[in-house]
Amino acid sequence: MRYELFYWPSIQGRGEFVRLALEEASAEYIDVARERGRGRGVAAMQRLMSGRELTRPPFAPPFLRAGHQVIAQTANILHFLGPRLGLAPESESARLWAHQLQLTVEDLVVDVHDTHHPVGGSLYYAEQRDEARRRAGFFTGERAPELLGYFEQVLQTNSGGRGYGVARRLSYVDLSLFQVVAGLRYAFPQLMEQLEPSLPGLVALHDRVKQRPNIAAYLASPRRLPFNEDGIFRHYPELDCSD
Amino acid sequence: MRYELFYWPSIQGRGEFVRLALEEASAEYIDVARERGRGRGVAAMQRLMSGRELTRPPFAPPFLRAGHQVIAQTANILHFLGPRLGLAPESESARLWAHQLQLTVEDLVVDVHDTHHPVGGSLYYAEQRDEARRRAGFFTGERAPELLGYFEQVLQTNSGGRGYGVARRLSYVDLSLFQVVAGLRYAFPQLMEQLEPSLPGLVALHDRVKQRPNIAAYLASPRRLPFNEDGIFRHYPELDCSD
Repeated sequence: MRYELFYWPSIQGRGEFVRLALEEASAEYIDVARERGRGRGVAAMQRLMSGRELTRPPFAPPFLRAGHQVIAQTANILHFLGPRLGLAPESESARLWAHQLQLTVEDLVVDVHDTHHPVGGSLYYAEQRDEARRRAGFFTGERAPELLGYFEQVLQTNSGGRGYGVARRLSYVDLSLFQVVAGLRYAFPQLMEQLEPSLPGLVALHDRVKQRPNIAAYLASPRRLPFNEDGIFRHYPELDCSD
Repeated sequence: MRYELFYWPSIQGRGEFVRLALEEASAEYIDVARERGRGRGVAAMQRLMSGRELTRPPFAPPFLRAGHQVIAQTANILHFLGPRLGLAPESESARLWAHQLQLTVEDLVVDVHDTHHPVGGSLYYAEQRDEARRRAGFFTGERAPELLGYFEQVLQTNSGGRGYGVARRLSYVDLSLFQVVAGLRYAFPQLMEQLEPSLPGLVALHDRVKQRPNIAAYLASPRRLPFNEDGIFRHYPELDCSD
């Protein structure tokens, strides 16, 4: 199966959680909006979103084409891909648990996005800087410690899992938690310096994922876009917590 | 199977999407935090959330206990319950599509919540009234028309489905879309007065769901909590759009 991933071409964003799973599994895929030619590029993505060609159109990127199916919503894509890529546990109950964790990762992603866009996604950051400062204070002071503490607890509880989030081997949830740590280190270095001593399981998981051969090769390749100030994890020093 | 639903006892909130599915299916369930006695009440819910008793603790309500499983995240709960309650389509691809729509409902729910809590959930509305006004303007001006227009398009495209969102019979997605229309009418009556003429499919779906015998009986019972200003759909006239 050759997968087609549709996502904005210049940011990691939500698409990155899907890219990491495809890369870890050495899946054959096309990052459609980043390529040129017929049926490629952002225009091709937007045409599918317009809903005229599909009976099940996505509301927003990322979405994935797998044969005749077009699947949207990041966590839903991973719920679909996980078993096919060998990145999900076997039992239905463990798959629901993995999906539940991924949806909680998504909650964190929404929170991170809203630190710089608390008013609206179609406005520039500069147009909502005051609101962003307050929202970011809530994120660094309350939500980030709560959510990261929760994931740390999950990793510690699953101690039979050799440090993985679910069951006893790598799943897409682990790849997403790697991305969360990497993204937060980029966007909120001061916050992470404060929090990481209390998150040994998450930090170790990040390091282990980063060293996996397929992930290391991906991170060193031009396919891995750099973090930037158009994505979800943005480094605005004024939003990070002070010492 | 007797289900146990755990959710805040005084609001509809996210729990209501689960309650509607359980009620439509005449499922046997206990709304644990709304009852008293041993193993009941908010304290019982919070004890489970503390993570000391469960190897797979939820991050936040709502969550559902079904035998030995405890499942959190609203859309995940419905993904689990749907097939068991006869409220999901048969094929895997249609189930993913239903789940994708439910996750998009969840996006709208986050947007609605953030109209009155754009800074932080632990602060009072009065502490973020200025930010709320801007955020609500973005919601009424852009996000609500976009999201509701998307659901309308889905209903129109699925015209073989006799007005249902997915396939040819009622699913949990339809119950959730009923709740979205009911909630938005309560919270943003002016907005809905403007938008509804362009949403005939959604309005008709709302009316049809409301008249289903089990739903009508539920809505007339004390089990249906009234909308109020502690839940997700809150009526603050200053946040509604003006004429």
